[in-house]
Amino acid sequence: MKAAPSGDRMDLLIQGGLCLTLNARGDLIENCEIGVSGGEIRFVRPAGSSEGTAAKEVLSAAGCLVMPGLVNTHTHLPMVFFRGLADDLPLMDWLRNYIFPAENRHVNRELVRTGSLLAMAEMILSGTTTFCDGYFYESTVAEAALETGMRGIPCQGFIDFPTMDNPDPTRNVMIAENYVKKWLGRSPLVTPALFCHAPYTCSPETLRSIKAVAREAGLLFLTHLSETREEVETIQRQFGRTPGRHLEDLEVLDEKTLAVHCNWLDDEEIQIFADRGTKVSHNPESSLKLAAGIAPVPKMLREGITVGLGTDGSASNNDLDLFGEMDTAAKIHKGVSLDPTVMDAETVLRMATIEGAKALGLDGLVGSLETGKRADLIIVDLHRPHHVPCYNPYSQVVYAARGADVRDAVIDGKVVMKDRLLRTIDLPRLLEEAAKTASSIASRTDSR
Amino acid sequence: MKAAPSGDRMDLLIQGGLCLTLNARGDLIENCEIGVSGGEIRFVRPAGSSEGTAAKEVLSAAGCLVMPGLVNTHTHLPMVFFRGLADDLPLMDWLRNYIFPAENRHVNRELVRTGSLLAMAEMILSGTTTFCDGYFYESTVAEAALETGMRGIPCQGFIDFPTMDNPDPTRNVMIAENYVKKWLGRSPLVTPALFCHAPYTCSPETLRSIKAVAREAGLLFLTHLSETREEVETIQRQFGRTPGRHLEDLEVLDEKTLAVHCNWLDDEEIQIFADRGTKVSHNPESSLKLAAGIAPVPKMLREGITVGLGTDGSASNNDLDLFGEMDTAAKIHKGVSLDPTVMDAETVLRMATIEGAKALGLDGLVGSLETGKRADLIIVDLHRPHHVPCYNPYSQVVYAARGADVRDAVIDGKVVMKDRLLRTIDLPRLLEEAAKTASSIASRTDSR
Repeated sequence: MKAAPSGDRMDLLIQGGLCLTLNARGDLIENCEIGVSGGEIRFVRPAGSSEGTAAKEVLSAAGCLVMPGLVNTHTHLPMVFFRGLADDLPLMDWLRNYIFPAENRHVNRELVRTGSLLAMAEMILSGTTTFCDGYFYESTVAEAALETGMRGIPCQGFIDFPTMDNPDPTRNVMIAENYVKKWLGRSPLVTPALFCHAPYTCSPETLRSIKAVAREAGLLFLTHLSETREEVETIQRQFGRTPGRHLEDLEVLDEKTLAVHCNWLDDEEIQIFADRGTKVSHNPESSLKLAAGIAPVPKMLREGITVGLGTDGSASNNDLDLFGEMDTAAKIHKGVSLDPTVMDAETVLRMATIEGAKALGLDGLVGSLETGKRADLIIVDLHRPHHVPCYNPYSQVVYAARGADVRDAVIDGKVVMKDRLLRTIDLPRLLEEAAKTASSIASRTDSR
Repeated sequence: MKAAPSGDRMDLLIQGGLCLTLNARGDLIENCEIGVSGGEIRFVRPAGSSEGTAAKEVLSAAGCLVMPGLVNTHTHLPMVFFRGLADDLPLMDWLRNYIFPAENRHVNRELVRTGSLLAMAEMILSGTTTFCDGYFYESTVAEAALETGMRGIPCQGFIDFPTMDNPDPTRNVMIAENYVKKWLGRSPLVTPALFCHAPYTCSPETLRSIKAVAREAGLLFLTHLSETREEVETIQRQFGRTPGRHLEDLEVLDEKTLAVHCNWLDDEEIQIFADRGTKVSHNPESSLKLAAGIAPVPKMLREGITVGLGTDGSASNNDLDLFGEMDTAAKIHKGVSLDPTVMDAETVLRMATIEGAKALGLDGLVGSLETGKRADLIIVDLHRPHHVPCYNPYSQVVYAARGADVRDAVIDGKVVMKDRLLRTIDLPRLLEEAAKTASSIASRTDSR
């Protein structure tokens, strides 16, 4: 990490506003000044500490909050095209009778491309700068990230039956190796990872062999886990143990495994996760809406497990707005435990930033505003009735702010949104293209 | 109700868009046309049904949703000034050690005036057109409603100890009568009502006598009820019965009583409410955040109780955005019951519109878009990434839309917001004034 000598010409300077660094000390810096050069944060300091810093572009953040961009640890981006197609249904009915048939009929590389771009537009507009995605044709998602300038972990998915982008599951390991080879080190924005769908759709052999490829390459391994009570019963019946214990026995749990949902983890599984350093992605809105369950997150945090936030796909949430997800995460655990002190606002904002980055193994790069990190940050506009007064910035962000309050977004030092205008996406054209795809889906689907 | 002859000159015409009427049949009208004259809806019909309708002002709603304005059945508007002052605390600690002292130190008529205007700006900007408020200096809230053109039920509050606007609680009945006399029939926008704080702060005599004044005038009577488990225990200890049974025995429950929160109603109380036609205001976000409890709303609905939505005050929520409240209401009951079919999107949108209007006794005037009703409506802009596609408008409004998507708002036939610009409030000046009040509070309060 190089410190920037004062007076260096920066590529970008953010001036003014209250900076929520989300560093380990939780520093808040009033009237802050952040210098960015070569995509890297070169300084974060009170304004006026040095004279005459020059920059190619300056963003004034007076009267705003400046904070790290949000980190979405779990989503299925192209599923924006199935948003609202079928709601208020039991999970298995929803999946088997609506989502799977719609995917079989409509998903192809073109839908994945348009859906990814549409999802990225929505994410940038609501303050997310890093995502972790699992879907079909994941290289197309990765290419969309390069195009829009978003930071992402596009995950190649694995499941024990033929899919539209992998007709032969016996070739899983080869596909995993090729995917890693294709994306590893290709861009600072894109980090590949491998995602086994779930222990009830992936055999022990699939789980072990895909984890082995990820381990060999030093990459993240993911799986949905313990989403519903039915899933726990299925695994119990099939393997005689809980899903978490099952993965432990298969030796796939370590600090580079991220388990998604974990609504029904019991105390033993939580202890195993804590011991192994295994990470959790918490998706409260999706799990509430699908009535899948409510993850024991306060207990996980007490045991020292790293928990990040995720929105899940738009078919189950129904949006990609992490501000709404923070609000829900902060409130739901208070309500069900009848303890208003759990999941305080700062804890939840950390889950949506630095803890999410840790969950993805990206905390060396992003998740907080500190010298030497990549410049992924957002500016939240407080010039609105619902932000006056603003006594406590953590409360304000978690309980009152929403995606539409994000004025500017910077990823890897590049301004991707200024004054709510996207710079890397031609939005009117994209919306037109997306509307065509949506009409075609609507005309050939019985929505509910 | 007068039907409008075709060709009549309207004051306002809304053209195009998909209209969610929220009438009893649940009519959706594509490419709709709504005519407004004298503040009244004169027609709601498919466009092109008649030629050449003239109007003084036309709002194009092409590619938008047109729906009734939202109805907030419970709030404490001036408490916007205590938003974020103290969060993540137990209810009684929060109230006694932060909110009550802050109110004693800072609340006066001027704060109520500025706070009401600020809250009304926030409400209009997030699609609310009708509110029901309880606070101090309620005539000042009513005057702010006349000034901003909002529809409201400002409630005079009663409690058995001296307050800043009523030093002598023995004068409660006289104050109630004077308040009713002052506001009854004064404006079509403002309907007075009487609000006893709660059975644990109001004696049986207070509850009975204030209800008697409301009954005599044909007005709504309100009380907080059964918010926390502790409250239920207190009433049980003091009166040997549950809070709902207590009110029943005092004969204050009828179809013009609205009970707020009702988190701990038991089956007997629910049956009493159903039999009496007593209404409920459901404030899920406040009750989650304060860990007060989760109201058994699906059961209330099954028993035929009218339930409206409310945000509660901004100190406990922390905003006045009913879109967020709808999203939470739809999700939380699925999550805790593990039944994803309860509280479907249309049911929840009805709670935020026509059912809320019923709860307030205003359903003859507002809550749905029908000929003869007053013209309270909003236009939701769908030209955004998170609204493409839009297969099901109810899902879209409840699960994906948010306050900031509301483009225009009409109350009593008057356009109070167009293209997100407020027409009845000088927002920059108000924000400046509010910031001064907020600084003064911050400098004299230990926030947490």
